[in-house]
Amino acid sequence: MSGPQPKTFIVREAVLKAFCAAVLERLGVPADEAALVTDVLVEADLRGVESHGVLRLPQYVERIAAGGANPKPNIRPVRETRTTAVLDGDNGLGHLVGVRAMELAMAKAAEGDCAFVAVRNSNHYGAAAYFAEMAARRDMIGLSFTISGLLLFPPWGGAEAMIGNNPLAMAFPTDREFPIVLDMACTVARGKILAASKKGAAIPADWATGPDGLPTTDPAEALKGFLLPVGGPKGYALAVAVGLLSTMLSGAAFGSEIGQVHFQTEKAPNVGHLFGVLPISSFEDIGRYKQRMRKAIEDVQNVKKAPGVERIFLPGEREYLLLQERRRQGIPLSLGVFNDLQQVGKRYGLELATMGA
Amino acid sequence: MSGPQPKTFIVREAVLKAFCAAVLERLGVPADEAALVTDVLVEADLRGVESHGVLRLPQYVERIAAGGANPKPNIRPVRETRTTAVLDGDNGLGHLVGVRAMELAMAKAAEGDCAFVAVRNSNHYGAAAYFAEMAARRDMIGLSFTISGLLLFPPWGGAEAMIGNNPLAMAFPTDREFPIVLDMACTVARGKILAASKKGAAIPADWATGPDGLPTTDPAEALKGFLLPVGGPKGYALAVAVGLLSTMLSGAAFGSEIGQVHFQTEKAPNVGHLFGVLPISSFEDIGRYKQRMRKAIEDVQNVKKAPGVERIFLPGEREYLLLQERRRQGIPLSLGVFNDLQQVGKRYGLELATMGA
Repeated sequence: MSGPQPKTFIVREAVLKAFCAAVLERLGVPADEAALVTDVLVEADLRGVESHGVLRLPQYVERIAAGGANPKPNIRPVRETRTTAVLDGDNGLGHLVGVRAMELAMAKAAEGDCAFVAVRNSNHYGAAAYFAEMAARRDMIGLSFTISGLLLFPPWGGAEAMIGNNPLAMAFPTDREFPIVLDMACTVARGKILAASKKGAAIPADWATGPDGLPTTDPAEALKGFLLPVGGPKGYALAVAVGLLSTMLSGAAFGSEIGQVHFQTEKAPNVGHLFGVLPISSFEDIGRYKQRMRKAIEDVQNVKKAPGVERIFLPGEREYLLLQERRRQGIPLSLGVFNDLQQVGKRYGLELATMGA
Repeated sequence: MSGPQPKTFIVREAVLKAFCAAVLERLGVPADEAALVTDVLVEADLRGVESHGVLRLPQYVERIAAGGANPKPNIRPVRETRTTAVLDGDNGLGHLVGVRAMELAMAKAAEGDCAFVAVRNSNHYGAAAYFAEMAARRDMIGLSFTISGLLLFPPWGGAEAMIGNNPLAMAFPTDREFPIVLDMACTVARGKILAASKKGAAIPADWATGPDGLPTTDPAEALKGFLLPVGGPKGYALAVAVGLLSTMLSGAAFGSEIGQVHFQTEKAPNVGHLFGVLPISSFEDIGRYKQRMRKAIEDVQNVKKAPGVERIFLPGEREYLLLQERRRQGIPLSLGVFNDLQQVGKRYGLELATMGA
């Protein structure tokens, strides 16, 4: 677990939540919904997924203030069968819309059916894992798909960004303290290329292309060009599939419909998601399922380790351990994120207190 | 499109199908079921996915002959709700079990529900895409997951294979000639490492590890070691998730339960799968869906191209075009595959005729 870095401010979970919720309430978000959005945001910080945590609050604030997101959405199903629904998010914050959509999917699965809810007119929903984990806590496998509001890379062979870094998450209940959670996007992290650039090191040929769309090992060219999807054509196909799942069932924006909307804070981006649940007990005795999951976890944890490796982690386990640590010891915020939050807070007469301050 | 290579035998689709079906019938597989298995196999060859086509027939023959697969399975649901089922494959060939499972999922979705069928006691099912495409032909999004019968790579940080190359497929209906199809496994192809080894070239550090589990750029060390999952921890997590989806809902084998069973042809491998369907019209008017898919396809096809690239392909399009070509011009089989098939045929007094022979 990484300790605090230089120029890091440590903030208590409860303090950070109260601050974020207060900011959202000042923008007109009802208190219970502000608390819900805040829970999704801060959980990402607790789990070490800072890229999807409170770092994003200023963006959301700006979008609500500019009229590009609705602080009081009327989220409602517009088409339903007993096991499916399309939910119109009324341009609410994606975190809230996502929670409502997953709640609806779980309600439809209450009698043992599998259920899927497609969403349109939503916004960035934060970390995909949150919604999948909601289902795992109810002894269901949870599936969560979304489309990125940024066109990040070209179709395979192209030289013009048309596909987003479309993330997917799946969560599996266990009888351990943590569910097993897949949460992935479809490219390598841009930060790795930045790091290579600063060191003057070459990057592997499968990380990025130059602006012409041809693979490059020069990080400077890569930063002017495009990220490559993981596994090349595999990652391209996976990103397309996740994007289609997230948009074509609900009428949400895909491809050229997305365009520059990420930067147009006054416009509704019509983000789409898809949520699915599979109730374990419809397929398998829950006790036997959990016993078999325990065995599967042990199989993975107990393999021979590579030199220098102390412990094997299941997907999602590292994030769970970090969450436990940060609940006890506080959440580290970088100087940049801390300052951005304080600046947003100042507008509303709110201040974010660090631990011991 | 790749033309015939040296030492390639060209066989007509109908001739190859008749040959494979006849071999399976000699082993006791009922004629209609033999035709069905053959269709799944030969479709992979038509689509250029030779690794999952008739190349595998000798393995299946050997397994049936040794008692490790059942030529006359009693495939039956053992647990059902109106939208879910667990199917026991009775150790039948996976291609047949997979078709029956996807048929059951589609039947359960006939009134507009989403539906999922988990499978146990199956065998290697060939190319995952086939089953997903069955649903796409019925205006449903089709999902197909399976677990590999081979433990190919360690959990992240490990030095002992415990995870398979677990493939997943998704197919989306379109109003074009072809559906959009994702079909991927979770590691880089071993063949790429073999090719680098023959050229004496270094491999990227994210393709494989040596036998100690540490990443290597030396292809010789890599061939003694383990493949790395695509995208590192992302591919590890994805393979675990696909493996759990394919086994934990049905009681099929995972992790150490798989062990050496791939090489024990006299033993039932208890392979698991999961199939899911989402009927488009429960979510969206089918006409509007197809119009939006057409627009999405055009967005992707019409991007600026990288130098030297003539055409951008949608996932699954290349395979569809190859299928059209091979339906007209015949299916190329390598010398090795052709000889293996002839040898199997000889046992049953069957001969595989090449075009013009």
